[in-house]
Amino acid sequence: MALIVQKYGGTSVGSIERIRSVAERVAKFRALGHQVVVVVSAMAGETNRLIELARQIQKDPDPRELDVLLATGEQVSIALLAMALKDLGLKAKSYTGPQVRILTDAAHTKARILAIDEERLRRDLEAGCVVVVAGFQGVTEDGDITTLGRGGSDTTGVALAAALKADECQIYTDVDGVYTTDPRIVPEARRLKTITFEEMLEMASLGSKVLQIRSVEFAGKYRVRLRVLSSFEDEGEGTLITFEEDAMERPLISGIAFNRDEAKLTVIGVPDRPGIAAHILGPIAEANIDVDMIVQNVGHDGTTDFSFTVHRNEYRKALGLLERIRGEIGARAIEGDERIAKVSIVGVGMRTHAGIASKMFRALAEENINIQMISTSEIKISVVVDDKYMELAVRALHQAFELDKEPAVPATA
Amino acid sequence: MALIVQKYGGTSVGSIERIRSVAERVAKFRALGHQVVVVVSAMAGETNRLIELARQIQKDPDPRELDVLLATGEQVSIALLAMALKDLGLKAKSYTGPQVRILTDAAHTKARILAIDEERLRRDLEAGCVVVVAGFQGVTEDGDITTLGRGGSDTTGVALAAALKADECQIYTDVDGVYTTDPRIVPEARRLKTITFEEMLEMASLGSKVLQIRSVEFAGKYRVRLRVLSSFEDEGEGTLITFEEDAMERPLISGIAFNRDEAKLTVIGVPDRPGIAAHILGPIAEANIDVDMIVQNVGHDGTTDFSFTVHRNEYRKALGLLERIRGEIGARAIEGDERIAKVSIVGVGMRTHAGIASKMFRALAEENINIQMISTSEIKISVVVDDKYMELAVRALHQAFELDKEPAVPATA
Repeated sequence: MALIVQKYGGTSVGSIERIRSVAERVAKFRALGHQVVVVVSAMAGETNRLIELARQIQKDPDPRELDVLLATGEQVSIALLAMALKDLGLKAKSYTGPQVRILTDAAHTKARILAIDEERLRRDLEAGCVVVVAGFQGVTEDGDITTLGRGGSDTTGVALAAALKADECQIYTDVDGVYTTDPRIVPEARRLKTITFEEMLEMASLGSKVLQIRSVEFAGKYRVRLRVLSSFEDEGEGTLITFEEDAMERPLISGIAFNRDEAKLTVIGVPDRPGIAAHILGPIAEANIDVDMIVQNVGHDGTTDFSFTVHRNEYRKALGLLERIRGEIGARAIEGDERIAKVSIVGVGMRTHAGIASKMFRALAEENINIQMISTSEIKISVVVDDKYMELAVRALHQAFELDKEPAVPATA
Repeated sequence: MALIVQKYGGTSVGSIERIRSVAERVAKFRALGHQVVVVVSAMAGETNRLIELARQIQKDPDPRELDVLLATGEQVSIALLAMALKDLGLKAKSYTGPQVRILTDAAHTKARILAIDEERLRRDLEAGCVVVVAGFQGVTEDGDITTLGRGGSDTTGVALAAALKADECQIYTDVDGVYTTDPRIVPEARRLKTITFEEMLEMASLGSKVLQIRSVEFAGKYRVRLRVLSSFEDEGEGTLITFEEDAMERPLISGIAFNRDEAKLTVIGVPDRPGIAAHILGPIAEANIDVDMIVQNVGHDGTTDFSFTVHRNEYRKALGLLERIRGEIGARAIEGDERIAKVSIVGVGMRTHAGIASKMFRALAEENINIQMISTSEIKISVVVDDKYMELAVRALHQAFELDKEPAVPATA
């Protein structure tokens, strides 16, 4: 008998029929003798409907009141799911975030969980109850309702699993696991049976949006066994997210992430002296523009070129800012390019293996894809290329690293 | 400077525009220096939408979970109204029933208020905040969400006014006060400037459904100054509900109530012996059928006739029950009539004045209206007549008691 936390997103509870099928899956786990805590999001579309209502009243809705409003979305879901469970003859009880007492800070619309009072839930579980908890919401020390921000239901699930010391936290979504890359681009893409937390973090932040980053960090911190599964399939074991130390031999590369969300800016011919990077990026930061990749190469003739990427939505704003400070920083010219793509290979194995980068660059060269920027971390290598080559680059890398093949099972020591 | 509790029903907050106009009215009261607590219902139609969702999941929805579901309706209203108030530059803060801590018993879907913790609200009011509270809901000692049943928002308003010792509780509705009778039947019907609590109770239970009965009882018990006003008119003082001792000389009759909701049943020729009424009504009560008027006249030849009225929806069921026990109780026959109406005159003045009943019966006799049943209490006289005469009876009585004329102001002692 295990204690399992299951989290279902908005699509999984998006209609009466789907709520019923969630209840049926929970019933199967109960029939196997497991204790089950279910965390649910608002029904698909509901949160947007509520935000639209709020915007009709206030252009920039008051954050405290927006949280009061949005919290109703999950409250509807928990009540309906508890009813569906009872309709199947199970014992069930719903709880809002404030009712559990999921204590958060007071940062309305993006609050962080501080503590969870799990005593009442544990009593219900021991009495044979399925406990249904509203995701995405909590309460401050003062009793104000808070929300954790978009995707926060994943975080609720992981935090509850940590507080209850659950055997597993299962995140049900509309994909059946984490893939080596997007199957729409590479049909041979393969579902990973396991992926490490660190790889998952890199994959998520790079655009494979299966899980919310914060929930993955949370799971890593509290050592929660996390599994991503499809809510539309009854079979399948999904992808288990593991701790690196659990994994034995790891494949070199786990997956390939990519996005077209960014734009590139280059400041050409700035004096190559200390403080120049801060001088360029200071005004960008003040304008609240997030910078992703930053590349500065060694200079020559006393000047250097400085490149960075921003989200495409902020490209025009960033370009305008740089034009304005060009004289001040003594740059020769400002260049920009919106038509770029970022492609990254991710894998903890690369830490202990040389030659990964050169293999990546060779695969791209063989397809005549020019690399515009390179940035590396311990477990990933990212390149910026012309965006028309993105799909080609992803396919070439998928093949070069043989990601379509199941990695050989290492011999047990 | 006064402390005023204002309650707005579902129609008054039924759209974004109406929520805005509630906010504007509140702003006017604030501009006059008053402290304002606003109690709101769910937006019109929302509660029914939620009940419909629940019924799609469970034919007979679990009461605990139904309360969790329904409570979201008012929570949406308070958030939107608080936003609208802030949009007008006012300080405002919303509270759900559980957040205030409106403590109730655990009778889900029809809970009763046990206590209100008003400390936090009072602090907000003193800080210049408009406090917006969700009507209709509370929380049990165990932290479970409860609802007070339909119309419970009136009760929330009155209970808050009592707890805060407010100067007045204003119930905004779609009528501009309490009338001597329904103006659709008697065009000369006049709005009452004041009515006593007891009269209001009789008027409400007799079909002038302006206020929920429980809220009137509550207001009477805690001596809350209660006023009914229109939320669609900016002028008008509505109807103030007073305590009898406040009133000096009262008019004989305050108003005329009526309904066509009932049906009459008569058990003919039962043995005139002790216990027979209980014997007849026992099975009716066991079937959960509410009985309104009961009339039993003196018997002769050792038998008597026993009549009572029930809601028309339960007429068939009650008739079937009586047919089944007819032999057992030794009745000669069972008769029934669905086509009846009940017409009542209400007024605390009748306590101290003789001749009211005979004046009533005479007025009906002059119109050739036959009286089928009579029932009296201290401050009302009800008659059952053929339902086709209902409007005629109401008009005749309105005229006989000169209700179209403003009562003379008594000379100050």
